[in-house]
Amino acid sequence: MEIIKTIEQLQEIRKTISSSVGFVPTMGALHNGHISLIKKAREENDIVIVSIFVNPTQFLPGEDLDAYPRKDEADKKICQMCKVDYLFMPDVTTMYTKEEILIKAPNKSYILEGKARPGHFDGVLQVVLKLFNLTQPTNAYFGKKDAQQLSLIQQMVKNLFLPINIVPCDIVRESDGLALSSRNVYLSETQRKDALLISKSLYLATSLIAKKEYSVEAVKKRILDTMSNLDVEYIAIVDREFNELEIVEPKNTIILVVVRFGNTRLLDNIWI
Amino acid sequence: MEIIKTIEQLQEIRKTISSSVGFVPTMGALHNGHISLIKKAREENDIVIVSIFVNPTQFLPGEDLDAYPRKDEADKKICQMCKVDYLFMPDVTTMYTKEEILIKAPNKSYILEGKARPGHFDGVLQVVLKLFNLTQPTNAYFGKKDAQQLSLIQQMVKNLFLPINIVPCDIVRESDGLALSSRNVYLSETQRKDALLISKSLYLATSLIAKKEYSVEAVKKRILDTMSNLDVEYIAIVDREFNELEIVEPKNTIILVVVRFGNTRLLDNIWI
Repeated sequence: MEIIKTIEQLQEIRKTISSSVGFVPTMGALHNGHISLIKKAREENDIVIVSIFVNPTQFLPGEDLDAYPRKDEADKKICQMCKVDYLFMPDVTTMYTKEEILIKAPNKSYILEGKARPGHFDGVLQVVLKLFNLTQPTNAYFGKKDAQQLSLIQQMVKNLFLPINIVPCDIVRESDGLALSSRNVYLSETQRKDALLISKSLYLATSLIAKKEYSVEAVKKRILDTMSNLDVEYIAIVDREFNELEIVEPKNTIILVVVRFGNTRLLDNIWI
Repeated sequence: MEIIKTIEQLQEIRKTISSSVGFVPTMGALHNGHISLIKKAREENDIVIVSIFVNPTQFLPGEDLDAYPRKDEADKKICQMCKVDYLFMPDVTTMYTKEEILIKAPNKSYILEGKARPGHFDGVLQVVLKLFNLTQPTNAYFGKKDAQQLSLIQQMVKNLFLPINIVPCDIVRESDGLALSSRNVYLSETQRKDALLISKSLYLATSLIAKKEYSVEAVKKRILDTMSNLDVEYIAIVDREFNELEIVEPKNTIILVVVRFGNTRLLDNIWI
């Protein structure tokens, strides 16, 4: 595995590759969720590039940019074990200049996560576009856990005619159901235990829908009842394009929840 | 020469090309200025792609989008004569969907042309980025006449790490000095004659500078005196990065003028 720090180095290397490239962009602090993306990329491509870059433009003022977990040495070992070919670890001054061309995500970037974090998705699309142009992947791998991010990246690829195949990957969970997240390290022991209600509520909602209860109101109520002791920020039931639904559409529905534990926001979702 | 109308067709063809691609994006109504770009592309690349697309997002409300000269049949013949390989002529619904990812040009897009046409450069960068992603050129050719556009496209390529070489091409002029423009057709005979003062004023400024007069104020005065009978919108003397200068910097200066003839704005510039 080669570790790449500069743009020029990455561009030079990319020029020499004519076979398929799988790309996994990350903010590091790699867990089994990331590993599942890297493994899939490894299976499906000749060359695998992983990036680790905690992107400042997707953090709002007051968010956890400085506190965001950084585990460079552990991450390098994980990438090596996963047989990554190139690990791109640029620093901020490499990725950004004083004056930038900005990307303005569409209106649907200002609902749900975008409402809680206005401008967040502009920063996500900006850095992903830069990384796509640098790595020019055949396939790029994103977890379904950040469902709205995934949807916006798919839209960007479509709108800007990027010649890239986006591969959505299933959420990876702890054995007790908690969706993996780099931010789980922020949880206390009690919070960690309470957080189990999140995935539990989603499973209960799924079984309700399996029994043909398609009323969004009824499904939301079941979820809220299950998490009645938690600080639920939102529950949303949307189609794959992130339009709000009133009636669950089997095979075209995503149920999203966000729960707050102190300053930590935990996201989870399930695709029906 | 193959004429391409759809995205899918262009993407399929692009996949089959592994040699160098020269790309010339245009809004049609091709004149000798465009032809000089196409010829240069033809000399320097294995495959030449030209696009003709009157891009609505770079026109402001009330501008000449509907009146913009369209000469599809003549343009096709010109491209064929210039040995273009692929002529991409999409329609608007091909290039845009209802909800788009927008590109926000940087602050320097809101001076000069961007001040006269706020938002114009956002539209330019948006369509150029789409066309770049579709054609994936080795080299892309732009005229120096739209100097600010050229500068912003160079910045976009740098900021977004696009693997594309931008080739600036000299302004082509009529034998009497008038810079070629698709909008010259809007001029009456008298206006056409008066318009000669534009290039004349730039040549006089150049000879003043050749005599070591580096004061921007003095140079501007000479230009303004020469065009005293015209409706001059602005005269700007900037460096290659579009920072306003007080002292002319030889080899790093662009003198830009815009003159109005009724609703028609004529641009010209000279690179010192």
